[in-house]
Amino acid sequence: MTEALIYLDPDSRLNLQSQIRQKLVDAILAGTFPGGSRLPSSRKLAGQLGVARNTVVLSYEQLIEEGFIESRERSGIFVNEEILPERIEPGLGTSIDPESDQYWRQKVRTEVSGKHGYELPGNWQSYAFPFIDGQFDDSLYPTPQWREASRMALGARIFRDSSIAEMDADDPLLIEEIRTKMLPRRGISARADQILITPGEQNALYLITHLLTDESVSVVVEEPGNPRMRQLLHQQKATVLPQPVDENGMVINTDLDLAQIIYVTPSHQVPTAVTMPMQRRRALLKKAHKLDQLIIEDDFEHEINYEGQPHPALRSLDTHNRVIYVSALPRVLAPGLRIGFIVASAGLIGEIRRLRQLAIGRPSLINQRTAALFLSLGHYDSFMMRLRTEMQLRWFELGEALNHYHGRAVVTIPNQGGTVFWVHAPENVDVEVLTEEAARQGILIEADTHYYAGRRKSRNWFRMGVTSIPGERIREGVRQLRDLMWDLGYGNKVMLDENDPGLLKGEALKEMITGATLIYRTHFFENCTIILHEDGSMTGRAGKNDEDRDSGKWWIENHVWHRHWNKWAYGEAKAYRITVKDGKISWYNLSGRLADRAEIIPAKN
Amino acid sequence: MTEALIYLDPDSRLNLQSQIRQKLVDAILAGTFPGGSRLPSSRKLAGQLGVARNTVVLSYEQLIEEGFIESRERSGIFVNEEILPERIEPGLGTSIDPESDQYWRQKVRTEVSGKHGYELPGNWQSYAFPFIDGQFDDSLYPTPQWREASRMALGARIFRDSSIAEMDADDPLLIEEIRTKMLPRRGISARADQILITPGEQNALYLITHLLTDESVSVVVEEPGNPRMRQLLHQQKATVLPQPVDENGMVINTDLDLAQIIYVTPSHQVPTAVTMPMQRRRALLKKAHKLDQLIIEDDFEHEINYEGQPHPALRSLDTHNRVIYVSALPRVLAPGLRIGFIVASAGLIGEIRRLRQLAIGRPSLINQRTAALFLSLGHYDSFMMRLRTEMQLRWFELGEALNHYHGRAVVTIPNQGGTVFWVHAPENVDVEVLTEEAARQGILIEADTHYYAGRRKSRNWFRMGVTSIPGERIREGVRQLRDLMWDLGYGNKVMLDENDPGLLKGEALKEMITGATLIYRTHFFENCTIILHEDGSMTGRAGKNDEDRDSGKWWIENHVWHRHWNKWAYGEAKAYRITVKDGKISWYNLSGRLADRAEIIPAKN
Repeated sequence: MTEALIYLDPDSRLNLQSQIRQKLVDAILAGTFPGGSRLPSSRKLAGQLGVARNTVVLSYEQLIEEGFIESRERSGIFVNEEILPERIEPGLGTSIDPESDQYWRQKVRTEVSGKHGYELPGNWQSYAFPFIDGQFDDSLYPTPQWREASRMALGARIFRDSSIAEMDADDPLLIEEIRTKMLPRRGISARADQILITPGEQNALYLITHLLTDESVSVVVEEPGNPRMRQLLHQQKATVLPQPVDENGMVINTDLDLAQIIYVTPSHQVPTAVTMPMQRRRALLKKAHKLDQLIIEDDFEHEINYEGQPHPALRSLDTHNRVIYVSALPRVLAPGLRIGFIVASAGLIGEIRRLRQLAIGRPSLINQRTAALFLSLGHYDSFMMRLRTEMQLRWFELGEALNHYHGRAVVTIPNQGGTVFWVHAPENVDVEVLTEEAARQGILIEADTHYYAGRRKSRNWFRMGVTSIPGERIREGVRQLRDLMWDLGYGNKVMLDENDPGLLKGEALKEMITGATLIYRTHFFENCTIILHEDGSMTGRAGKNDEDRDSGKWWIENHVWHRHWNKWAYGEAKAYRITVKDGKISWYNLSGRLADRAEIIPAKN
Repeated sequence: MTEALIYLDPDSRLNLQSQIRQKLVDAILAGTFPGGSRLPSSRKLAGQLGVARNTVVLSYEQLIEEGFIESRERSGIFVNEEILPERIEPGLGTSIDPESDQYWRQKVRTEVSGKHGYELPGNWQSYAFPFIDGQFDDSLYPTPQWREASRMALGARIFRDSSIAEMDADDPLLIEEIRTKMLPRRGISARADQILITPGEQNALYLITHLLTDESVSVVVEEPGNPRMRQLLHQQKATVLPQPVDENGMVINTDLDLAQIIYVTPSHQVPTAVTMPMQRRRALLKKAHKLDQLIIEDDFEHEINYEGQPHPALRSLDTHNRVIYVSALPRVLAPGLRIGFIVASAGLIGEIRRLRQLAIGRPSLINQRTAALFLSLGHYDSFMMRLRTEMQLRWFELGEALNHYHGRAVVTIPNQGGTVFWVHAPENVDVEVLTEEAARQGILIEADTHYYAGRRKSRNWFRMGVTSIPGERIREGVRQLRDLMWDLGYGNKVMLDENDPGLLKGEALKEMITGATLIYRTHFFENCTIILHEDGSMTGRAGKNDEDRDSGKWWIENHVWHRHWNKWAYGEAKAYRITVKDGKISWYNLSGRLADRAEIIPAKN
């Protein structure tokens, strides 16, 4: 009998001794070995299981110490009869099917919509190209550093610390680390009593909206904007005022005047990832002060800018304590650690603390101490440095790939960094169909639908993120997405007309492009200039200040223009057929599909 | 300079290498060592700090690997200039004082009372006699077992588990362990989709009340009862219907008919610790079904009964899925682990899951997995066994001490177990004054005030718990509390009148008590019978079935009655002076204070 019960799993993370102990405990508690029954001798069990006798002896010894079994002299090992004094036979009834969902819907007083935003497929990790934001691939998790902090936190006997004996006090070490290590990165100085820990950023927003809003309060939310924030406000019966977003983030105008509270994501606007410039930040603060408005600044994704200096948080510019700053430890740590925090006026923090105590109690102190140690050992800083480097590589890779494969068929909104691109699809694209079809082919992208208030209607944007996809898969994913769009009839449908009078061949082709300058824009709205030198070399420059430069070779073979950049276009040779008309050059790939267009200034001009 | 910055703390839990690294990180991030500045050589720093050079070398190597510092060939060790690219100078303003609390009070839409219940002093661990419930002394924390589970959870790569990739799914291992190990102890069988994890029990109640109540709903709460539940209902603007409690828990009568929801703590009623008998449980369920009422069963303190079998939970008897069962992992684990759970109809669990996701998100998976492993390794069962044994010892010790020192000056409500006594003070006692004065003398007891709805008015009960006070301090704490009550003029104020005609001396005393039987009741309402045999021995029996027996010696010396039990009264000799009148014997201690009274049946009768 024992043999059948104890299957030792060679792939288990438990060692043999732990496995044996666990299986025996299960069997004892399940009543398979009733109290008072005799277990096989360690010699016999070891023989059955094919393990060293000592392994069984050690398992038994631990179980004896824990009181599950007892050793009776000269009789053997028996299950302790006392181990189950509180075990009760199940009553009737609970095995009966629950009442219908209908029943509960009629009992429920607070309607909670099931959809709070993008519904990530449960098995997203099995998709080949998960261009989603907010999940992280395993490789980024700082496992050894986290383990070190965790091990130390468990040994810290934090419960003895009288400074946290107040039932609603946070770990003072964590508060201090946030105050001195995280907030200075955002330009914020704060006292300890202006900081409160929450179990995650979502809960921070929940507590704030729960406390500050009701049906009499109007709150501005960016449009497109965070769907979870809108959901929280709906719960509170507050009025949501959608405010448009442009390339500089939320638009500041008199439409804001109607609100008591303004919710804003200035670092990287959700979902577009654009950054609000300083001038607009100051204008927002000025207006809020004039109208006695409160601002909720959601800075969850710390400002990761790859171009230019990050801007200080609104909170750091706020001279009147109107800004309620919400942030969190990096999301990559989130599956195991839900630590968010709020920085605000001490008066408000006190109110939120009382609500937190009533609603959830103090966030786990061991988690708080683990996070504090992770910060104080310097792991946070070195981790963020690594994370930034990795995200920057991926983000550039995605931008390159979009530019290379989609050209101007899709347009991304210019931004300075972060982990996502907000991509505008051509007018004939149905983004919801595209998203569904892409998922079927292993490509996860996020349709814009749920980012808009009111009717769930796509405005033809979608979102691609880089946190969960390894850098080396980005290019292939974007290529496959392009092919899918083609298959669906989207994108550049223009095909080469073999009878096009502008189609250039032989000498005419050579004459037109030798020494010519091509000028066009990338889908990032950046200028790009290419010169095809007479010696067969070519040079290119792109970027806002032409800072992105490359060189390569070009040649003509069989009426086809070949070009080969050293770095650009993945340093791969490409072949195109060319038409020129009215000072515009178009190049088509060998299947006849339009690749891109530019202005052309021939050499002779 | 370095020397002054790096103070190595011999008492630190960090090893020297970690301390050096941490201090250097602090100094670099604080800007004390600016980017590009040169650090002392490892040889020099080791000399300054008096540590082995290799310790410094290892610290430096780790910092180099993490990018904080860099080694330049033949030049030395320098602070990496790139380490602080995102550091921003603090803006103005946030150092300015917050607006007044008044300002925030006017902004707040949801009033949260600051008092949710007993306000535990922050430094309770420094009190000599903390008779409080719900805190646990360090000695009970299962540190090694918890560490084992925690270490394994960190290595489990739980994030890769596709079964928890649904963003609102709980750890299936924890659900399974609760389902098969914890719930059977309460007689409950449940499917996985009938269980939801919450970060602590308070949050479970919060989510349930938030979902199921509003201003149109009336909820029965025991009186006295859980003040936090009343607070949650006030937040929801629900009507609270206080329902009296007697020795068998909440009274079941037609007053319940007005409610849609009934909140009840049948295992150990909060605060009185009485247990509801089966018959009343069935009556409650029958009524609820008849009137289509919901029941919230709060079983936070698992039924720890020392007398008799524990009763199955209401949920296990419920054939109609009306009971919403709330419980948690043992409170002793709570400082580091906030894991509560709800068992209810799958339909309701789905609704609560959605609200949980909106309000707080999924409770930390690493915490869930740690708890799951703690259960699956059998640590939970052996831990509960130890805890029960320890609590039982303390609980009996407290009962004994109350009986011995307070006699019938105080009366405790009879209960079958748990970790508290609900004590009724004599009528002339002001419980709030007593509580305050006791705290001043190092004795923490809890006044009844906040357990009653409406006016905060004491009804002369107080609460003494044993979870936080080591067993060996209980007796002395109770003795000092008795002395304090005497000092305050409370309790037995009756003093011996030297001219009392009933005062017995010499032969009269001897004749009266030799062979006499004394009959009285303990403050637990138990009978106690003492026989003073002629040979100078004495026997006593007490308890519901006379199961508590002892014997000892008695004698007379200088007109004083001496008695010496073997076990009772701590096995100590005591001396009393005696009066007898109208069949009642009174004994006074040598300071003349009345100790107790009994009926006396002389031998000759």
